[in-house]
Amino acid sequence: MDTKAEAEADARMLVGMVVFDGFQLLDVFGPLEMFGALRDKVRIVILAERSGPVASSAGPSIGVDYTFDTVPDLGVLLVPGGAGTRREVNNAHLVDRLKSLAIKTPNVATVCTGAAVLARTGLLDGLKATTNKRAFAWASGQGDQVHWVKRARWVEDGKYFTSSGISAGMDMALALIAKLFGRQTAVGVANGAEYRWNEDAHDDPFAGLYGLAD
Amino acid sequence: MDTKAEAEADARMLVGMVVFDGFQLLDVFGPLEMFGALRDKVRIVILAERSGPVASSAGPSIGVDYTFDTVPDLGVLLVPGGAGTRREVNNAHLVDRLKSLAIKTPNVATVCTGAAVLARTGLLDGLKATTNKRAFAWASGQGDQVHWVKRARWVEDGKYFTSSGISAGMDMALALIAKLFGRQTAVGVANGAEYRWNEDAHDDPFAGLYGLAD
Repeated sequence: MDTKAEAEADARMLVGMVVFDGFQLLDVFGPLEMFGALRDKVRIVILAERSGPVASSAGPSIGVDYTFDTVPDLGVLLVPGGAGTRREVNNAHLVDRLKSLAIKTPNVATVCTGAAVLARTGLLDGLKATTNKRAFAWASGQGDQVHWVKRARWVEDGKYFTSSGISAGMDMALALIAKLFGRQTAVGVANGAEYRWNEDAHDDPFAGLYGLAD
Repeated sequence: MDTKAEAEADARMLVGMVVFDGFQLLDVFGPLEMFGALRDKVRIVILAERSGPVASSAGPSIGVDYTFDTVPDLGVLLVPGGAGTRREVNNAHLVDRLKSLAIKTPNVATVCTGAAVLARTGLLDGLKATTNKRAFAWASGQGDQVHWVKRARWVEDGKYFTSSGISAGMDMALALIAKLFGRQTAVGVANGAEYRWNEDAHDDPFAGLYGLAD
């Protein structure tokens, strides 16, 4: 871990991923794979309420670089989903810290049920957003002033990007990379990962699979 | 971390992922996302040469559950790629331990340039295998007795599965899940992750992109 001063002296954009106990593996590491390919442009940091390793819902644990109180200014803030969100939506400390950080960060993105946690900050009120399709009823219930979009791979509204479930985070991350660094950079990242980018945000076969009408 | 005895008392199949400094994030966590959805059937363990956190090429680090010397019997052994493979192909200790473990494990799978490391054990000699398409020349050079397949999303030969680059590991993992637990289980895992499974192992647009003729 670098000091906050060292991180801020680095000219690269800081991309910060929030983690909490029970985060979904691919929600975190799918987007980080895409941003991680841009080593000359971005630096990835992991943040959590407390220092020390944090366990995913599948078992493997990740190291934490910063707490919410020590994290340097970010260019992108990412929030994953996972079973742990069922607890974190009621964690007033995390929701409060997340709100403060999201307000001052120029790009904020959620994957899967991460949108439920962000919705609890109130920052999505009046905006369009999407979330996991199988858990849509629960997740959308965490923000009744949000304009939840049922059929969408991801939704962009101002500085907020919200993606559908789990693997959709990779498609959204590439869209965010395209916004920040240009489409050709995003295509290059996808090809480098031998990943077929679902580049059409409206192409979402899973909404129908889980019975969500338009 | 459980003890070896506790792990072996667990009736679930152990799926072990090898990590080393400079592993590729999605090579590890793409397949583990898929296996991690089968919590009633499998348990994921992370193994490395030494205990303590291991850093990916993109920065984030993962916790280690077992070393090669303490790992319980596995049902599936997974080997990722990443920049660290350029070093690990010349790490005689790791190659030797990997060989011993692969011989006694009933299912062995590599992602991306993980095939280069496994090729150094000699266990792929005379078998068909594939690897990362952009790094094909280097990776295939690590085993001149291997029948390297240029155009393939993944290759199955006996108990060995080898995948193409990075995101191809998810498609291969689903094929391995289909072999072990049935196709409907694999389809359910893919749908749960809102992942479009590339189920055709021959459908590989990246071979052409990187100039590999059939």
